[in-house]
Amino acid sequence: MRYVSMIAAAAILVGCETVPNEAPAQSEIRYITTDAARAAGFPFSPAVEADGWVFLSGALGTVPGGGLAPGGIGPETRQTMDNIQATLESQGLGWDRVVKCSVFLADIAEWPAFNEIYKTYFDGNYPARSALGASGLALGARVEIECIAKR
Amino acid sequence: MRYVSMIAAAAILVGCETVPNEAPAQSEIRYITTDAARAAGFPFSPAVEADGWVFLSGALGTVPGGGLAPGGIGPETRQTMDNIQATLESQGLGWDRVVKCSVFLADIAEWPAFNEIYKTYFDGNYPARSALGASGLALGARVEIECIAKR
Amino acid sequence: MRYVSMIAAAAILVGCETVPNEAPAQSEIRYITTDAARAAGFPFSPAVEADGWVFLSGALGTVPGGGLAPGGIGPETRQTMDNIQATLESQGLGWDRVVKCSVFLADIAEWPAFNEIYKTYFDGNYPARSALGASGLALGARVEIECIAKR
Repeated sequence: MRYVSMIAAAAILVGCETVPNEAPAQSEIRYITTDAARAAGFPFSPAVEADGWVFLSGALGTVPGGGLAPGGIGPETRQTMDNIQATLESQGLGWDRVVKCSVFLADIAEWPAFNEIYKTYFDGNYPARSALGASGLALGARVEIECIAKR
Repeated sequence: MRYVSMIAAAAILVGCETVPNEAPAQSEIRYITTDAARAAGFPFSPAVEADGWVFLSGALGTVPGGGLAPGGIGPETRQTMDNIQATLESQGLGWDRVVKCSVFLADIAEWPAFNEIYKTYFDGNYPARSALGASGLALGARVEIECIAKR
Repeated sequence: MRYVSMIAAAAILVGCETVPNEAPAQSEIRYITTDAARAAGFPFSPAVEADGWVFLSGALGTVPGGGLAPGGIGPETRQTMDNIQATLESQGLGWDRVVKCSVFLADIAEWPAFNEIYKTYFDGNYPARSALGASGLALGARVEIECIAKR
């Protein structure tokens, strides 16, 4: 019995040590969507999760009724961030779980105005980020923001 | 002997519990390339894998003989998607393992035409995605698509 | 005692086998910053790490005194790569741990000149990569480079 236990322990020891290097046969891929997203019919999910990593699609400042929040870069940034926050919260996540964002601006000259709104969503710890001017965004948006979160 | 086994078991128990929080000393980074890619001499690998995450380089709609598929956004999108699919399949992967794509368009006005072709590669479950207009793409391409897949 | 040890071993065995499929309750998110980055006051961390994945913010070719390295795409690319390397090295990482880069160019026509400098930082094994022309970059930069590394 003792020998069996030692052999079992040895087997477990080996098993444990190889765990980090052996990925599971296949990770579950979870498509996160909403009725509104399905109705819109665009070929992307609002977010997709695998292994606790949540990839959010590029979000725009669209309002529930349709169309973009009016008023330019400030209000549109706020709406975009609110939309992302709603997606995060629907998954039990918050801005403190976001590790990386990519920001696409219709006009890079609006980068400072964008930053003013963007930073209000964080407590001083900011995700890594890239920002660039795009030659055009879907729906004529002034800003599109894409985030990656980790559970 | 029994004591040894108990000590070993205790050590293992601690070891197992810390596995998820302790990354392995170093993950293997696997460069995925082809003879054609090596011959082209560009400074990027078609794909790189670490921990079951496969990062594909931005793909263009190039044809085997060289140059882009002719005919505009439709045929070029199809060729780009076929090229990505070939890379995925070479790794035993398919579109159902892709969690996120980024789409760069030479003209954002071609977003609807792009979507029409893009969506035909999926069974209704779509990766997360961002799309933006670029001020220019390599080789004068009309579209570049970058994907992340998970085993 | 022997029975206890067997029961413990059985419990451990089950524990080990579920490790790969059960993510830890919450991954640690580590914000990587510097005094200079804090002083600049921009709303992003130079890098953020979770589960051994290190996401670097888009880097520009800024020099310690402020402003961009003068001389155009060549010197600016070199400075940008040096800046990224400094961030990597501060975390005990090097270019051989980088799996993916995104390159944003103010003018896609400078892609070949960019590549000439970029490739000198690698030993022949290249990360996956995307590159595109941006309609504008922060600080009037000619190039911005974003990388993902894995420990």
